[in-house]
Amino acid sequence: MKCNIAMSRRSASLTSVAFKRMSIAPTRCESFRPRFYASDSNSLLAQEFTINGDRLWGDIHYTAQFSLPSPGGVTRLSATPEDKMAKDWFREQVTALGAEYQVNGTGSQFALFDWGDRSIPPIAMGSHLDSVATGGKFDGPLGVIGGLEVIRSMKEQGIKTKAPIALINWTNEEGARFFPPLGSSCVYVGRSTLEEAQASVTHDGSGVTLGAELAKIGYIGDGPNTFEEFPISAHFEIHVEQYTDLEKAGKPVGWVKGWQGMVWYFVNLRGDDGHANTYPMYGRRDALMGAAKIITELEKLAYDNGGSTTATNIRSGPLGSCNIQSDVHLAFCLMHVEHSGMKAMSSAAETKMKAIADMHGLEMRYHRDLDLPPGEFWPEAVDCVRRACGDDGIESITRTAHDSTMMTTLVPTAMVFARGKDGISHSAKEWTSKEDCAKSCEVLGKSVLNFDHYIQTK
Amino acid sequence: MKCNIAMSRRSASLTSVAFKRMSIAPTRCESFRPRFYASDSNSLLAQEFTINGDRLWGDIHYTAQFSLPSPGGVTRLSATPEDKMAKDWFREQVTALGAEYQVNGTGSQFALFDWGDRSIPPIAMGSHLDSVATGGKFDGPLGVIGGLEVIRSMKEQGIKTKAPIALINWTNEEGARFFPPLGSSCVYVGRSTLEEAQASVTHDGSGVTLGAELAKIGYIGDGPNTFEEFPISAHFEIHVEQYTDLEKAGKPVGWVKGWQGMVWYFVNLRGDDGHANTYPMYGRRDALMGAAKIITELEKLAYDNGGSTTATNIRSGPLGSCNIQSDVHLAFCLMHVEHSGMKAMSSAAETKMKAIADMHGLEMRYHRDLDLPPGEFWPEAVDCVRRACGDDGIESITRTAHDSTMMTTLVPTAMVFARGKDGISHSAKEWTSKEDCAKSCEVLGKSVLNFDHYIQTK
Repeated sequence: MKCNIAMSRRSASLTSVAFKRMSIAPTRCESFRPRFYASDSNSLLAQEFTINGDRLWGDIHYTAQFSLPSPGGVTRLSATPEDKMAKDWFREQVTALGAEYQVNGTGSQFALFDWGDRSIPPIAMGSHLDSVATGGKFDGPLGVIGGLEVIRSMKEQGIKTKAPIALINWTNEEGARFFPPLGSSCVYVGRSTLEEAQASVTHDGSGVTLGAELAKIGYIGDGPNTFEEFPISAHFEIHVEQYTDLEKAGKPVGWVKGWQGMVWYFVNLRGDDGHANTYPMYGRRDALMGAAKIITELEKLAYDNGGSTTATNIRSGPLGSCNIQSDVHLAFCLMHVEHSGMKAMSSAAETKMKAIADMHGLEMRYHRDLDLPPGEFWPEAVDCVRRACGDDGIESITRTAHDSTMMTTLVPTAMVFARGKDGISHSAKEWTSKEDCAKSCEVLGKSVLNFDHYIQTK
Repeated sequence: MKCNIAMSRRSASLTSVAFKRMSIAPTRCESFRPRFYASDSNSLLAQEFTINGDRLWGDIHYTAQFSLPSPGGVTRLSATPEDKMAKDWFREQVTALGAEYQVNGTGSQFALFDWGDRSIPPIAMGSHLDSVATGGKFDGPLGVIGGLEVIRSMKEQGIKTKAPIALINWTNEEGARFFPPLGSSCVYVGRSTLEEAQASVTHDGSGVTLGAELAKIGYIGDGPNTFEEFPISAHFEIHVEQYTDLEKAGKPVGWVKGWQGMVWYFVNLRGDDGHANTYPMYGRRDALMGAAKIITELEKLAYDNGGSTTATNIRSGPLGSCNIQSDVHLAFCLMHVEHSGMKAMSSAAETKMKAIADMHGLEMRYHRDLDLPPGEFWPEAVDCVRRACGDDGIESITRTAHDSTMMTTLVPTAMVFARGKDGISHSAKEWTSKEDCAKSCEVLGKSVLNFDHYIQTK
C-alpha cells in the first residue's frame, strides 16, 4: 500500500457543514491570530468545563496492562491479543456511556454520542490505543482515553453540544507492526483503500497481513471505513509532544499549528552472493556494505540540511555465518520543517545512495512512501485549542505524522500537545505527569466546546 | 556453543597408528618437499587408479535436485527436508556398496568399507552434502560424492587397501542455518560436545536448534560422535578452491598446504529507544548507526592490514517504521594469512568498535568465536596429494575452514583443490567443470592410495 499524502486536499463538500480552507503556507510556523475569531476567551460551556484527572490517570495506567511484557512502558502492536484487550476495554467503556458503537474493516472503533443535532456531522476526538514495540504509556492512549474522559465529564456535567460527538480509536497509526502507518486514517480520507490497508504487511518479510491478523482477533467489522460513510465536522487529538519545546518553555500544554515534513525511503540493494572468507575484497558486490555506507551518510545529510534523519529498519541476507550479504532491505526517514529543506535533503540522499550503489556495483531500487510535506492545521480549529490553552500553553509544531495529519486533509483539525519529559517517546521512558495529562484533557474538552460554539456562530 | 579451535592439537595416541606431528609454522605457506618421502611418484595402486567422471558428474547434478528452489545452485540447509533427501540418497548409495553404515548424534553419516586390516583405523574421506543458502552445487557435495566415486571405482577395479576406507558426510560444516559452523566435526575432535552442537541455534533469533530439527527429519542416530568412538588414520577431502590461484596458474587441481586465519566477532550494541521522527539528533543512542559505522570500518581494516573482512549478519530492533534502533546484533569475520596480521587486525577492529560505541553512547558486548589461527596440514598427507596431482597441480592454501581443518588437529589430513571459476563460491554461480571435478576425484583416490602405501612403509 502506498499512502502518498502529498496530494492536494479534497473538498469537504460532502459534509453538511462546509468549511473554507485557508491557504497553507509551507514555511515554518509563526505565531498567528486568526481574523475570524477576535476573542481570546473560551465559549461559555468551555469556560466551565472540567475533567476528572484521577480517573484519566487511573485509566491510562489500568490499560497499560494490555501489553506484552514491557517494563515501564507498553508494547501493544496492532491486531495482537494485547490490542484486542484494549479494543474490548474501549468498547465496554463507550457502550456503557450510551454510544452508538461500530468497528470498521481496519479494526477502528467509532463511538457516536448522539446528544446533538443529527444534521451536523459529529465533532470527533480520536487517536490510537495500539503502540510501537517497547513504547510508552502515553503515545496514542492519552488521545483516546483523554477523549473518553471528556465525554464522561460532559455527561456528568450535563453538557449538551449542538453537534454530536464522536470518539475514534484508529488502528495502526504507528505502522509498527504493519507498514504503512496511518493505516486506517489513510483509508478514511481516501488516500488508500480498505483492501490496501488490510493487505499491509509486517516488516519482517513474513507476509503476515493486518487484515488476517485483525480477523484472528475478531476486529473486522462492517462499520464506516471512509469519510463518506461517517462524515465528521472536525477532528481534535491530544498527543504527547515528543519534543522539548513545552518543557523548555515551562508550559504543560500547547496548540499545534502544523507539522514538519517527512518521507520514508525504502531501499533494496542487490549484490552478488559469495563466500565471506575466501572471496577477494576486490570485485565484491556487498549489499550490506552499501547499506552501511548509506546509513552512515544519514548523519551528514541531517547536519548539512538542518533536518533530521533516522534509519528505521534493516533486513539482510542470505542468512548464514559465511555469506557475503547480497540482498539488503533498508528503510530510513528524512524530516525537515521546511519544504525547501525536504527537497534538498531528499535530493542529496538520492545522489548519495546512487553514488554508493555505483561504487559497490549494486543494483538499487527504492521508493518513497509516506511523503508528507510540511503543513499546517486549520486555523479555525487551532484557534479553538489556543483559546483552551490560554496562558498555560504555547504554540508548537509536531515533528511526526498522526491520524490528525490525515483528518486535516478533509476537515478542520487541530491537536493539543501535552508536555513530555526530555523529548523521549516510543520508549518505556516516555513520561507525561498526571497534572499535564489532566490539563491536556481539559484543553481537549474545551477545544471541542469552542468548536461547537464556532459552528453555531458561523 | 563456543568452538575455539585455537587450542593446541591433541595427541593422536588413541589411534593404533600414531603419527608424529611436525611443528606448524604460522607463516604464509611456502613450497616444500618433505624429507620423509623422497619420490615424486605415486604408489603402484595409485598409478593405475582411475575414476568414472561421467558417473561423478551425473551424481553431482542428480543430487542438486535436493534443494529449495535455487536456480543454478543449491540451497540445502542443515536438517531441512532437502538435507534429509540428500542424506537418504547417501545412505542408499553406501549401503548398496556394502558399507557398515551409522548416523551419529549430529546427523553425520559414517560409511565404513571393511576391505582392509581392521587393526588399522580407516583412512577417511569426507566433506558435507548440506549447503549455505543460495549456494552452489560443488561446495561440499564434490567432497562427498567424489569420495563415493573413489570407493565405487576401487571396488570396480578390485583395489584392496591395507587400511579400511571410511566415507563421512559431516553435518553443518557451513554454519549457514545453525551457528557455529563445523558443528559435527568440532564434536568429533573434542572441541565441543554433542550437547553443545545439538543446541546450536539459528541466526534469526528464533531459538530453533540443530538437535530439534535433526530429530524432525529422523537423523539423530547412535553412531560415533567422537574420534575415540571412531578413530581414523587420516582424512582427505576434495573442495572447490573458492579462490583464483588454480585458475590463474591454468591448473585443474592443487594440494592444499594450509589455511589462512579467521575469526568471527559477534557484537551486540544497545542504545535507547526513541521516536524516529521527533527525537533530536543530539543525544541519540542509535545502535544501528553504530553498527553501520563498524561495518563501514571493515573495508579500511582489511586494507590497512593486508587481510580481508566481511560483515555476515545483522539483526536490528525494535521492528517498526518509526523507532530509533536500540538493539543491534552484528556478526563479521576477519581473515589473514599471517598470525601477526590476524592479531593486528583484531586489535584494530576492537579499538574501532569501542571508539564507535563510545561516540554514540552505546553499550557494547562482543565475543570472538571460531577463532582459527593460520596453520598447515600434515606434510605426510599433503605430500600424498602433491604426488597425486603431479604436474596438473600447484600448491595452494585455503582461505576458509573445513571439516579437514578440524580433523588435522588429530590425524594426518590434507585437501585436494578443484579449480573453480572466478573465485566464486557460496553462490549459484559457483562452477567447476566436469573435467576438473573428475581430475580432483582421481587425485583424491590416488592420495588415499598413496597414504595407504605410506602406512605400510612406515
